[in-house]
Amino acid sequence: MKDDQLNIELNIEKKPVNQRAADEKMNLINRLKRIEGQVRGIQKMIEDDRYCVDTLVQLSAVNAALRKVAFSLLEDHTRGCVTGAIKSGHEDEAIKELMKVIQQFSK
Amino acid sequence: MKDDQLNIELNIEKKPVNQRAADEKMNLINRLKRIEGQVRGIQKMIEDDRYCVDTLVQLSAVNAALRKVAFSLLEDHTRGCVTGAIKSGHEDEAIKELMKVIQQFSK
Amino acid sequence: MKDDQLNIELNIEKKPVNQRAADEKMNLINRLKRIEGQVRGIQKMIEDDRYCVDTLVQLSAVNAALRKVAFSLLEDHTRGCVTGAIKSGHEDEAIKELMKVIQQFSK
Amino acid sequence: MKDDQLNIELNIEKKPVNQRAADEKMNLINRLKRIEGQVRGIQKMIEDDRYCVDTLVQLSAVNAALRKVAFSLLEDHTRGCVTGAIKSGHEDEAIKELMKVIQQFSK
Repeated sequence: MKDDQLNIELNIEKKPVNQRAADEKMNLINRLKRIEGQVRGIQKMIEDDRYCVDTLVQLSAVNAALRKVAFSLLEDHTRGCVTGAIKSGHEDEAIKELMKVIQQFSK
Repeated sequence: MKDDQLNIELNIEKKPVNQRAADEKMNLINRLKRIEGQVRGIQKMIEDDRYCVDTLVQLSAVNAALRKVAFSLLEDHTRGCVTGAIKSGHEDEAIKELMKVIQQFSK
Repeated sequence: MKDDQLNIELNIEKKPVNQRAADEKMNLINRLKRIEGQVRGIQKMIEDDRYCVDTLVQLSAVNAALRKVAFSLLEDHTRGCVTGAIKSGHEDEAIKELMKVIQQFSK
Repeated sequence: MKDDQLNIELNIEKKPVNQRAADEKMNLINRLKRIEGQVRGIQKMIEDDRYCVDTLVQLSAVNAALRKVAFSLLEDHTRGCVTGAIKSGHEDEAIKELMKVIQQFSK
């Protein structure tokens, strides 16, 4: 896969991502920990035969939270890796990859 | 909230949901457990500074899995509670509630 | 296709849809006429080489408008045909069909 | 609005979009013309009291076609304007704008 080559090349360029303050990384991890807890909560709701609509509302909240995390990460990726790739002339692959990821989320 | 009243009334009607074979309930819980594990895996990916696109692909997989669980639950709800409510003449509230839930997911 | 049979049977039941006031039908048609005009406007924007982001914002507005029309129609369908089918004991096919349509929109 | 300033600056940079072969522009316009025709067809379906599910299936097809046009345009925009802005050091605004547009579509 050409991705590996791209990754190696981007490693040199994607400093902004590496410099992303530790607290920004922590922020993403904390949001994912909260999501993990919510998913566990939904298991409990199903176990307890809670009213389906309440469970669906919870599922939709987790879905929204997860999409927000993905969006933050997509923004980081565009500011970091994609920008770096464009500046170093590897735009074709970086944009192709970006588009593929965006398309996957719009499904 | 009128939902409580609706819930009580639906309890009589939503037998199909209660009869939902234990293994169907187990199936939903197992899928959510897998999702929980995937969310934990994504935390690890961020912690390890893994390539953003790989993390985004994982996030999109969890998103799709979560939507499938929601869809299964929505189908159960429609077959169970909504059908019961319609048969017992409480269709107005049940359909209003169903529509609200569907709308929330299309956001 | 069994759908035809279902349609015939539902014709007897889906009176609520037929009774849908002429102005409600007119309302949907008018919204679609506005959407048609917006789509024509977007063609013009592309023809005129307008800034892509402005065109994308317009496309996203049309998308939202179209989804709202679909949602209104889905609600009518659930209140009319699906409710009728459930009351007359044809719930299995009606719900299967409903779920298929909802799934198509969440793509 | 800062967009105007950005647009002016990007005009110098977004040559790739301007160079977009006339047939690529034609391709987008033709797809939008087809969508316009489909929207007109849906008006007719509602006028003729066609079965709601058939109308919904058509609406969902138009929705998908519209999203594909938006996606093509988003890709052009990223390859053209965004890449140009990044190369000329205007990445901050260009990426902010790009993210806003992507977010609008994920709603």
